[in-house]
Amino acid sequence: MEKDLGLKMVEKSCDILETIRGQHPLVHNITNYVVMNFTANVLLALGASPVMAHAIEEVEEMVGLAGALVINIGTLSKQWIDSMTVAARAARARSVPIVLDPVGAGATRFRTEAAWKLMGEAPVAVLRGNASEIMAVAGQKGITRGVDSVHGTEYARQAARDLAKTHGTVVAVTGPEDFVTDGSREARIANGHALMSKVTGTGCAASAITGAFCASEPDVLAAAIGALVTFGIAGELAARPNPGPGSFQVGLLDALNAIDSAVIKEGARVTLS
Amino acid sequence: MEKDLGLKMVEKSCDILETIRGQHPLVHNITNYVVMNFTANVLLALGASPVMAHAIEEVEEMVGLAGALVINIGTLSKQWIDSMTVAARAARARSVPIVLDPVGAGATRFRTEAAWKLMGEAPVAVLRGNASEIMAVAGQKGITRGVDSVHGTEYARQAARDLAKTHGTVVAVTGPEDFVTDGSREARIANGHALMSKVTGTGCAASAITGAFCASEPDVLAAAIGALVTFGIAGELAARPNPGPGSFQVGLLDALNAIDSAVIKEGARVTLS
Amino acid sequence: MEKDLGLKMVEKSCDILETIRGQHPLVHNITNYVVMNFTANVLLALGASPVMAHAIEEVEEMVGLAGALVINIGTLSKQWIDSMTVAARAARARSVPIVLDPVGAGATRFRTEAAWKLMGEAPVAVLRGNASEIMAVAGQKGITRGVDSVHGTEYARQAARDLAKTHGTVVAVTGPEDFVTDGSREARIANGHALMSKVTGTGCAASAITGAFCASEPDVLAAAIGALVTFGIAGELAARPNPGPGSFQVGLLDALNAIDSAVIKEGARVTLS
Repeated sequence: MEKDLGLKMVEKSCDILETIRGQHPLVHNITNYVVMNFTANVLLALGASPVMAHAIEEVEEMVGLAGALVINIGTLSKQWIDSMTVAARAARARSVPIVLDPVGAGATRFRTEAAWKLMGEAPVAVLRGNASEIMAVAGQKGITRGVDSVHGTEYARQAARDLAKTHGTVVAVTGPEDFVTDGSREARIANGHALMSKVTGTGCAASAITGAFCASEPDVLAAAIGALVTFGIAGELAARPNPGPGSFQVGLLDALNAIDSAVIKEGARVTLS
Repeated sequence: MEKDLGLKMVEKSCDILETIRGQHPLVHNITNYVVMNFTANVLLALGASPVMAHAIEEVEEMVGLAGALVINIGTLSKQWIDSMTVAARAARARSVPIVLDPVGAGATRFRTEAAWKLMGEAPVAVLRGNASEIMAVAGQKGITRGVDSVHGTEYARQAARDLAKTHGTVVAVTGPEDFVTDGSREARIANGHALMSKVTGTGCAASAITGAFCASEPDVLAAAIGALVTFGIAGELAARPNPGPGSFQVGLLDALNAIDSAVIKEGARVTLS
Repeated sequence: MEKDLGLKMVEKSCDILETIRGQHPLVHNITNYVVMNFTANVLLALGASPVMAHAIEEVEEMVGLAGALVINIGTLSKQWIDSMTVAARAARARSVPIVLDPVGAGATRFRTEAAWKLMGEAPVAVLRGNASEIMAVAGQKGITRGVDSVHGTEYARQAARDLAKTHGTVVAVTGPEDFVTDGSREARIANGHALMSKVTGTGCAASAITGAFCASEPDVLAAAIGALVTFGIAGELAARPNPGPGSFQVGLLDALNAIDSAVIKEGARVTLS
């Protein structure tokens, strides 16, 4: 039965991708300097329309044009947090789904507290991070060192379940196997490739793609799963002919542009429970 | 007769490119975060010397070293507008040509007004944007939705003519066919490739290249035409072996590095009137 | 005898690279917008762990997690200088080695004075720049035009020796032949490729790699030499199949990922005196 649910979800992923390709939803990103170019190119390759805008004078107006708002705290400053907060409130008022990427939460108090502040502007549609970031957002400190181990992964997934229930948000913990939950349903996605961790901004790209999927699908859990399956398979496609991280990054954009329903249906490794 | 003028202009384009390759003019960019890296690499591949500097404390001094100033409002904030204004005034005082790229004008009032403010620091040598941006700079709102249609293109070209006359500036409206006018003369450039719209920052790159051409040629209309012809043909060259947007972006830099007079003369599709 | 010392240093370079690959040291970068993405990818390809963080609220805490701090003044503003100063003091207090890249020193007073201010937060472990930047940091103005000539190179090397002695820092002057000195010992490194000057941020990448090497080796001169040898050979590897600057940049990341002790020992061209 899990298998059937997984298959259904994969079909839905394909449908959402088709919708993105037909509608080119505007995805408003307030993201970090490191990944802005790659994020924009990832969204263009996927079929979405990226815009980056962070000035407090224009974020409300820009959110009003957008199908989703992606907030990424990778290179923060106080002014940017203010803009993110204003944008998040505008998104909430207009029912524009928000994806929050708490880059580096747990590394410094400044980032952790920024993530908490933005989670407080709930509801965030999707919170996506790696295991240690999700645990930091859940307020669990000091055990981040074990997050790559089996126990660490399990801690992070439990933190994700708790956050999902408390905040009414979908939480995605990405890693060798991605985990997505809305507090009741759960999905595991075994797509992706190790080279993705050798290129900066692949996590941020996953969040941006999640924004594009949320802009095109009201079922947020399905949108998050669709985004991660699509991106994971694109990573697998790109890794085949490109063994180095430089050519892999280039190939990832080509793969996101070329990927389609047939490839997704063949490659998806999703289990739902 | 139009054909002859076009041919002459293409020869001039080749001459300017040779000058750039011989002199490596310094192009001072105050541009958006998304495209800074790509813009710098585009200018280096072309043969120019890029510098990015935005601090209000140094823009006047940097403009004094530069052959052109390229102002791009893609990721604005209030402080950056102040720096752009100071830099534009310094450029005017030193007769350094200014290229203005009004990214996103029309999308938010903040951007539209920033573009107007910077146009007010006239004369801008070249204003380059897509159809909806040029229309927004011309003060035409509410009809941006039609800009990709035949009517929309014609509206934008009329707006370009009006802006050129009113502001004493060359206006370039780029799209499937580029249009350049100084208010009396007009050129149409049918080079380029659809993949250019699948890579972020190609419009910004066109503006930066226009800066390099303006740094090497006092006839601003000729400089703008030369830049767009060169960039358009480079796009065609890059698209042949690179069907995906990631590899196309890489190939575009290689093509800008490799392009020469022979290739331009063979590939140019310019009509003048 | 110089040859033997050079060989020993190359073996040490290989050892440091192995250490980096085993420990993935965190390199904290406060760098310019243009090169952030490339710098992060360079460090990942090498085997290090990059983080970019510039907020004055978090730089002290981030430095405390890092194995090295790389400060690059390529796109300055007053706020960033403040953060760089705070981060440098925190690094000094925690004995975290600092690499300073004085991008554009000599071009504007703002940059030159920022470089001086940061040098005043001594000791900087490594100062790395091109000939004209190093001369500007040494307070030599007006003779930067000759730095590519034989005389200019010699002036810059003398400036490097003086700076090294005065500040107790290792100084690296990179160019067609790299020169590294701690004031008493000197190394010349004849690796690298002309295409490196056709890609933006290769100098900045050299500084970031130097940070990774300093994080893994207390002998700062050896670390700086190791970084420049490794990067130079990677450039040679990348240039072979990639004649254009776009594909070369991609190949450079692949080469940094693939390079190993055998390749370094075969390709290194280091002389020590």
